[in-house]
Amino acid sequence: MADPVIIGTVALDSIETPFGKVKDVLGGSACYASIAASFFSTPGIFSIIGKDFPEKYIKFLNERGIDTKGIIVGDKTFRWQGFYEFDMNQAKTLRTELNSLQTYKVEVPDHYKKAKYLFLANIDPELQLKVIDFIENPELIVIDTMNLWIEHKKDKLLEAIKKSDVLVMNDGEARQLFKTTNLVKAANAALKLNPKAIIIKKGEHGALLFTKDKHFNAPGYPLENIKDPTGCGDCSGGAFTGYLAKTGDLSEANMRKAMIYGSVIASYNAEGFSIERLKEINQEDIEQRYKEFKDIRDF
Amino acid sequence: MADPVIIGTVALDSIETPFGKVKDVLGGSACYASIAASFFSTPGIFSIIGKDFPEKYIKFLNERGIDTKGIIVGDKTFRWQGFYEFDMNQAKTLRTELNSLQTYKVEVPDHYKKAKYLFLANIDPELQLKVIDFIENPELIVIDTMNLWIEHKKDKLLEAIKKSDVLVMNDGEARQLFKTTNLVKAANAALKLNPKAIIIKKGEHGALLFTKDKHFNAPGYPLENIKDPTGCGDCSGGAFTGYLAKTGDLSEANMRKAMIYGSVIASYNAEGFSIERLKEINQEDIEQRYKEFKDIRDF
Repeated sequence: MADPVIIGTVALDSIETPFGKVKDVLGGSACYASIAASFFSTPGIFSIIGKDFPEKYIKFLNERGIDTKGIIVGDKTFRWQGFYEFDMNQAKTLRTELNSLQTYKVEVPDHYKKAKYLFLANIDPELQLKVIDFIENPELIVIDTMNLWIEHKKDKLLEAIKKSDVLVMNDGEARQLFKTTNLVKAANAALKLNPKAIIIKKGEHGALLFTKDKHFNAPGYPLENIKDPTGCGDCSGGAFTGYLAKTGDLSEANMRKAMIYGSVIASYNAEGFSIERLKEINQEDIEQRYKEFKDIRDF
Repeated sequence: MADPVIIGTVALDSIETPFGKVKDVLGGSACYASIAASFFSTPGIFSIIGKDFPEKYIKFLNERGIDTKGIIVGDKTFRWQGFYEFDMNQAKTLRTELNSLQTYKVEVPDHYKKAKYLFLANIDPELQLKVIDFIENPELIVIDTMNLWIEHKKDKLLEAIKKSDVLVMNDGEARQLFKTTNLVKAANAALKLNPKAIIIKKGEHGALLFTKDKHFNAPGYPLENIKDPTGCGDCSGGAFTGYLAKTGDLSEANMRKAMIYGSVIASYNAEGFSIERLKEINQEDIEQRYKEFKDIRDF
């Protein structure tokens, strides 16, 4: 059974960083998230691609145990073109072609409807809301977003957040949505909307988890060679949800572990373009880096 | 005996933040650093003030066990006027009056010369170099700096760094001095200059410690109400050196603890203007927050 199920984009990305350049490679929030989740569980994707989408990428996802029956085929695949300068914390968009995403109507395979874990990766909040309605009895809904939806679909986004259990966003988005520079204040405002847990991702500075009475500070991993940070946020959300689906333990203590697994996968992801580095790593690499995360914060 | 001994500025600050405004209050790198160190040991300051410096501030420092015999009296006290906007990570300088600092010639009380621990807080690197020569047989020299000296006295600064054991700087300064956005690369370049340990302070994001083979990531404390972050960096360096002086253990493991004590004092400091909050806290408050730093890092 596909669990977690993940809605998000499946894209062809063209990316330039100070360390290289790639064209029309596998990307999109649902791809990164599902590959990250696949280290822990057997995710299924909802998304839309076009007739131009290379068959080899679907085959690759399937070989990783990712269910792609929720991916429908429209006209032309969503494409994103962007670059990073030496400060790799911030992607600069050169061009976005929504293509088939503009007409995407979610279709839900029956065997997705019983999923217990739902990750609403970054995509139009109206689509996130539709998916929430389709899943019959989810135990956990995790939602991610981006500045575009805060600017243009804030009401729908807030509606989706109110139906979710865990809100994941980066620090800039948290400041923007809750109109404060102070992340503790932003998290407290987010907790009032309904989610029991707020995760604020801070790129190289790690991530924060806020729950009602507790606070957790996940360290950033000291990467000397970052090639391409595209998808790191999606990876951390995907691995987080995948690890919770695997363990079935939704306690705050287990969420801390899930966040570190998210950081582990994201840190590997940044070491290569597109999903290249994720292809190479195995369980041993993951456990090794998880241990390093323990060592670097021990005092 | 005064140990650690600390050179830095003693200033009268005028500060405005979104949460209030103060005029001609106690400030300066040596003040913040020595007050922070005084929670752990009995520091002594080298600095210069002017005839306009309020006697009550000297009395306050002495009451905290801080030796001020290394402070000489010139014409007019160094003054700094600055403000912070809602993103309190960055101070904006409105006015700097160097005054007596311009003619400051370090004088060293005999009983400072035997100090084992030396903290070169932010001040002209030529003065830092002079102090290094005066101390007979230091076991540990910790050096801090700021962008001004990187821009205008880089050669002297590098000379002082080469004679130091621990280099403390903030992330912006590390990037500027070592011409890289990547902090791991900056730290590796710094280690090549001689210091055995590099501490990179990242404001609300915590701090990093780099030694030859190890890396430590100290969390930021989740402060909901920051009133005035002036002096937080000086506090963390001062408490770090003071804790090492108290324990006499220069291992990497103990430096981690010293950094957390530095973060504890700095986090309290930001809760009030000038040194107001530091006046109020006691050993119990410090141990309590140290424990919180452990809790927010546990997984």
